[in-house]
Formats: sequence, structure tokens, C-alpha cells
Amino acid sequence: MNAIFIQIVSLASKNTTIRKLPQIYRKNYVSNLPKMLVKCLHNGNISQPHSHKNNNDIKAKVSTIDEVIQVQSADGNVLKYPWIWLRDNCQCSSCFNPKLQSRTIDWRTFDISVNPKSLHINNNILSIEWSDGHCSEFTLKWLHERSFTKDNQEKWLNDVYRLPKIPWSAADFPSVLKKFDYSDVIQSDKCLYEWLKALAEYGVAIVENTPIQEDQLRKLANRVSFIKRTHYGEEFEVRNKPDTTNVAYLSTPLQMHADLPYYEYKPGVNLLHCLVQTTGEGGDNLLTDCLHVSKILKEFHPEVYKILSTTLVEWSDIGEERGMKFFSLYRSPAICEDRWGQFARVNYSQQQRYSHFSIPLEDVIPWYKAHATFTQALYDPKNMVQFKTKPGDILSFDNIRLAHGRTGYTDTKSNERHLIGAYLDWDIVYSRIRTLKRQLNLI
Amino acid sequence: MNAIFIQIVSLASKNTTIRKLPQIYRKNYVSNLPKMLVKCLHNGNISQPHSHKNNNDIKAKVSTIDEVIQVQSADGNVLKYPWIWLRDNCQCSSCFNPKLQSRTIDWRTFDISVNPKSLHINNNILSIEWSDGHCSEFTLKWLHERSFTKDNQEKWLNDVYRLPKIPWSAADFPSVLKKFDYSDVIQSDKCLYEWLKALAEYGVAIVENTPIQEDQLRKLANRVSFIKRTHYGEEFEVRNKPDTTNVAYLSTPLQMHADLPYYEYKPGVNLLHCLVQTTGEGGDNLLTDCLHVSKILKEFHPEVYKILSTTLVEWSDIGEERGMKFFSLYRSPAICEDRWGQFARVNYSQQQRYSHFSIPLEDVIPWYKAHATFTQALYDPKNMVQFKTKPGDILSFDNIRLAHGRTGYTDTKSNERHLIGAYLDWDIVYSRIRTLKRQLNLI
Repeated sequence: MNAIFIQIVSLASKNTTIRKLPQIYRKNYVSNLPKMLVKCLHNGNISQPHSHKNNNDIKAKVSTIDEVIQVQSADGNVLKYPWIWLRDNCQCSSCFNPKLQSRTIDWRTFDISVNPKSLHINNNILSIEWSDGHCSEFTLKWLHERSFTKDNQEKWLNDVYRLPKIPWSAADFPSVLKKFDYSDVIQSDKCLYEWLKALAEYGVAIVENTPIQEDQLRKLANRVSFIKRTHYGEEFEVRNKPDTTNVAYLSTPLQMHADLPYYEYKPGVNLLHCLVQTTGEGGDNLLTDCLHVSKILKEFHPEVYKILSTTLVEWSDIGEERGMKFFSLYRSPAICEDRWGQFARVNYSQQQRYSHFSIPLEDVIPWYKAHATFTQALYDPKNMVQFKTKPGDILSFDNIRLAHGRTGYTDTKSNERHLIGAYLDWDIVYSRIRTLKRQLNLI
Repeated sequence: MNAIFIQIVSLASKNTTIRKLPQIYRKNYVSNLPKMLVKCLHNGNISQPHSHKNNNDIKAKVSTIDEVIQVQSADGNVLKYPWIWLRDNCQCSSCFNPKLQSRTIDWRTFDISVNPKSLHINNNILSIEWSDGHCSEFTLKWLHERSFTKDNQEKWLNDVYRLPKIPWSAADFPSVLKKFDYSDVIQSDKCLYEWLKALAEYGVAIVENTPIQEDQLRKLANRVSFIKRTHYGEEFEVRNKPDTTNVAYLSTPLQMHADLPYYEYKPGVNLLHCLVQTTGEGGDNLLTDCLHVSKILKEFHPEVYKILSTTLVEWSDIGEERGMKFFSLYRSPAICEDRWGQFARVNYSQQQRYSHFSIPLEDVIPWYKAHATFTQALYDPKNMVQFKTKPGDILSFDNIRLAHGRTGYTDTKSNERHLIGAYLDWDIVYSRIRTLKRQLNLI
């Protein structure tokens, strides 16, 4: 920040010449400004620039190329800010409420032809007087953080918006699966952050040594923020219930699936607290990273991938829970891409795929063939991992990204497998990750 | 259903001739079947077709065109069902659990080359013996409901999946705004359905004559199913709170916006129960149907529409609520289309639009210009309506589709404006609509 140039690129002036003048020659610079700007600089409403030990290298220039102000570092990097963005983001108390962290500027009366009448820089603060008479000030630090360069934006998005997801295969899994101590996560913000970071990056992590009590999962969820409720409630019990309306509540093998594909807004994170594990055979977890599988399909079976990512499938759940009937239904491809072609969500569930299939007849057989390839990929030992949680383990995984299943088991009178489940939403988890990062001075 | 033909279209046979034979000539038909099928029909494991008073018109034919079984009505409509879809949707007790309403067939071992060895139709039930030895039965009613014809699929989607949304302008509003009595909605399933139907179709409805008690909104929400929680809690109070971290909790005008654009999974329905309304000027609701506005923009300002529907904007909410810090952030266009180019969601909020704007510099000014056009359209008296709710009114509206705002007001000691707010998710509302429709024999 020791060497900053400032440049106004102005459509208000007809002068196309670029002028680079050191700040200490500002009087000369001012005398060269177009008439309108000179007038504003001399109207006495704004403080005049003065020499400052940190400002020796600050220069200003004017051109008519675009409606943009430029801040140029000594290393040659030019940071550019559109006028309208600056005016819209004025940080003064009448345009921005720091308590709300919200813009309060009224867009009904906002003039998009607003332009700077004058500007100066002092003590690393850029001051602008606007054509609407308003004055704005921006610290150079604030401007730098919001630089429109691609590098800066990518850094911001990776640091603050969302952590990059790292796909994994079965061979990667031993190094991918991180384990955290329950007491540490409850007590230490750093441990809480590390758990959520692992969950965001790899889509899976285990919190172990949790007390064998039914309320402990809620305690962990509340440490993040709050549970996402579904028509199965907030917490749900995973145990063998003969009269259940959900296949997870049986002791039979549970085929690979992602939970609640029949919700448009399906839960983001699955938490499964193991209270009692089967001491005999079975009850193993199966997990596959569908981000990884979708990349493989896209590369090696592009036709299969295209079918899976464009064919609308009907996902459903019909039943009754705690006296309330439900009939959930959502149409969505098995592999969902966002608008920009990136993996966005997996839907896979034999049990929740409806018998109605509202696609053209000629697309049905190709879809089934693609689905069979997808199924093979999900169960492929190169992709799928199998492991058994122990009492006290909370298995957490990304329900938008991973498919999971369970091998069958047999309950005995003295050994009845029993898990407590709950969901979190990524909106809430990411919010917590960001507040923790701020608190831990990571952003 | 009095006149049904059945046709197996088989890749297993090399014979491309279409044979149409009445059921009563089935013996002749069998003798003409390809060798493999004849063998199967004679293996004694399946019941033989017999004459039945309802089956006089049933005919069967075989061809080799596609892997499809056809059911043909006397009026000439041919209903076709791919073999693989039939096998996958076998309704027998080992493939389908009626209690779970779920397919239990195991796709790890599912053979996609499965083909019918024999079939017959009796008492309006189609029976199939498969090449894997399994037998399936389907009622013709069940098959008809799942017909792959476009008309049938569209009817099913409109009747069961989601109600078509009807866009409205300000001029339409008087006929669009339906009002329902609170007691009726609480007591009558038909009234509850009518309210939710109006909400789904028009995105707005009022439940009036609600008791002026803070717990009544929850009672209404629980009548649907359950409240969607956000970081502002389940219910939230909308009243003038000087120390708030949310601009809605002030008495100043509230610019047009949609709530929580900073959630990927933002709440679907907004409920606002008016306990105390301003008796003086102000406190009016502003509402605009962004489904309508987006259609206008798409038609008359296609460039503006394109920018608004493709430019990723950063929506944020930073603050603290009930001792829990939050930093919500989501990148999404102002107008979101689904993958098929249909309106999916509106994001509009000056107060929750972040100062970070991670798009290429050259796209910034065009976006602001498009945004100004969008703003004008939202406030255009041809699109926006203004009205004041009275104490006891619960204003319900679609937060995915509508923008809303509020005129400023002045509290006095004896008249402090006070609303209770809560959200519902469309996943839950649509589920309730479907169960009500079933209960009311509408589907």
C-alpha cells in the first residue's frame, strides 16, 4: 500500500489523454482537470489533499475511456472500480448501516448516471464527491479486498464463500477420513472449525467419544447452530421398527442412497450418532463420493453422464409420521449440475424413486441403462468404502454429495442396534464456518 | 377399460411382424410365438389365460421393434410400457413394500437385460413371467395412471406434482387476492386446501380473523405441518427495535425485497400475522409478482433479462441473533431459471446485496443498468400493489416468487405496530396439498 496511483476514468470528460501526476503536484493536476471537475474541487465542500508521509507515491490521472476509477499499485497492478458500484456501496452512515451490515441506500431514487465530480486520496482513504452532491469515503484496504481482479475474487470465494470440495476414491479414504474428539469439538472453536472444514472439503468426518446419551447429538448440532427439521422430526431414531414407514428403520440391508431426494430443499448434512452397534456381523456403513463418481462418468461415460444429469426422475415419500400424513414429491435428475455445469447434488434412492416416471417413452430404457452404470459405479470397490462405527461415533457426511448405505444386521435381545440421526443445512454450516474463520483470524 | 389389447414388443425375437390376435384365439397366438416364448408359456409355472366376461376384447400381439409391452384401448390409444420399467416397478411383496410405499428391489443384482417369458391378462390384471423367473402383476388401472403419454404425464404433474403458477399484474390483483377465515382454515380440511391452493397458484393469500395472540401463527403453521427455522428463529417479531441487526425490524420504509436471498435453501412461504397495525399513515404492504415481471423483462428487455438471469450476485447477512453470530452468503442471479429456462426463484434485496461482487469488471456496469430496469419494474404501479393488513390478518406469500416491501410508519406509545412472522417450505406445503387432495378425493 506504499505506492498507490489513482485514476478516474470519466465519461463526463471528453479528454482522452491519460495524465499521471504525483500527488505532490496535485495543484498542477487540478489545473488540468476538465472544467466541471475543477469547479467541484474548488467548491470548498471537500477537504484538500495534502502531503502525507504515506502518500508520497500517490498519483492521479483522468481519462474518458470508461466509467471506472482505477487504483494502481507501484508494481503495476491496476485495481479498477466502476463509479456506479462505488456510489452503490457508499459506506457513509446514510447509505450503509454498520449495525445491520446492510446497504440502506434507496434504489427507487438511485441515479445510475451518477459520476464523480471530484476525488482525492489521503491517509489511505479515497474520498469522492458525486454529481448528486453526496460524498463517499473508502479505505484502500476495503477497496483492495473488493478488487475485481480474477485472482482476488477467486481467493475471496475460496476463503470466505465456500471451501473447495476435494473428491475422493476408496483408495484415498484412509487419508480423507478425519476423526475429532467430541469434547474438543464442544469446547474448542478451532476443533469445531476443523471438523466443519473436513466435512465441507471431503463430505465426511467422524466425531468420536460422544457420550452414549440421546441428547448429545443435539448438543453437537446446536454447537453448529440448529437442526434442520424434516417430516421425520428433528432427531430421528434409526433402529429396527417393524411398523415403520421408512426403510432405514429396518434391519435389512439399506441400499446406497442419498436421503430425502423428494425434497427440493433436501438436508445438507447427515449426522448419525451410534449409541449401540451390532456386535455381530453387519451394520456397516457404505459411503461413496458422488462428486468423484460423477467426474468419472463425465470423463469415461459422457453419454451416461448426460442422461443422468438431464433426465427428470420422480422422487417420492408417502406415509405418516407422528400422526401427520405426508406425500413428498420432487422431480430432479440423479446427478444435478448447476447452471454452469458443475456438480451440484446427487439424487439416488431405489426406495424413494417413484413408479411414476414422467419422461418420454423412448428415454426410459436409455435412462435405466445409464442408471445401471451409475449403480455399478456407486458400489464399485474402487469408489465405495465400508466401515463400522462404534458406540460414541457421530458419522457426519454431506447428503448433497455422498451416497450412503448399510449392510444388514441381526438384533438380539441384548444387542439392539440404535442410532440417533439429525440433519444440518449447508447454509447454516457455512455460516458457522465463516464466523469461526473470522473469530480465528483466518479471514 | 372394456376394450384392451396387449402387445409384447420383444428384442428377444427376430420376427418384426406385428400380430394382432384376440385373446379368445390365444392358443393360435401362442403357437405363433417365437420359440423361446412358446417354451416359457408351456413351462407350467404360470396360470393359463381363460375367457372372462370383461376380457372379451383383450388381444395380444408380438413384435421385435422395441423392448416394450403395449396395452391398446379400443379407441386406438396405445399405452406402452418398457419391460425394464415394469420389472423395476414390480408390485409384489418382495419387490415393493406397500407400508413403506417404497421399491425394495435390489439394484445391485438387478438384470437390465430382463425380458418377459410370458404374459397374460385376466380380470384387468396383467401378469408377466420374467426371464429371471420372477412373476409380476399389474392392474390395468395402475398401468393407466402411469401411462407414458404426454397428456397423461402433464395431467399427473399438474394434478399431483405442483399446481401451475398463475402470474398476475396489479390490475389482476383484486381478483387474485383470496381471503380465508382463520377458524375455517383451522377446522376444515377443504378450507385449508383452498388457502394453500391459492398460495401455490397466485403466490399470495390472506387468512383473516385470526385471534390477536402471539401463538396463533404457529397454530396455523402446524395445521400445514411445521415452521421452517432460520437463524432468526422459528417465529420472529417484526416491530421497531432500535438495536436490531435486521432492517425489517425498523420503522423505516422497507424497500422491495425477497427474504433470505443469502440462503441457498431460502424459505418458500412467508407468513406475517398482524397483531397491531399502524392507525396513522404508513405500514402498508407492497407486493410484486416477479414471475409476471420476469416474463415482461424476458419479452420486452431480453438483454436485461439475460444479464439478470445469468450474473451471479453475492447476497449476505452478517450479524448476531440470540447470542449466535451468523455470516450467511450465497451467490445467485437476481432472476434464477431452472435448467430448462423456466422461472425458478427471485433474489432481490438492496440491504442483503453484498459489497463484494465477484464478476468480471466489464460486467458490472451492464449489471447495474439491468438492475435499475428490474427495480423500476418491481415498483411500477402496473406491477406493484399496495395494501394494509388489519389486526388478525395473516398475509401469506411465496418468497421464492414475490418481492415485498413496506412503507414507513410512526409508532406512538399507544400504537406500536407489531407483526409475528414465520416461514414454511414449499416441500412441506406441497406435501400437505397432496395429502389433502387425496383425502378430499381430488386425486
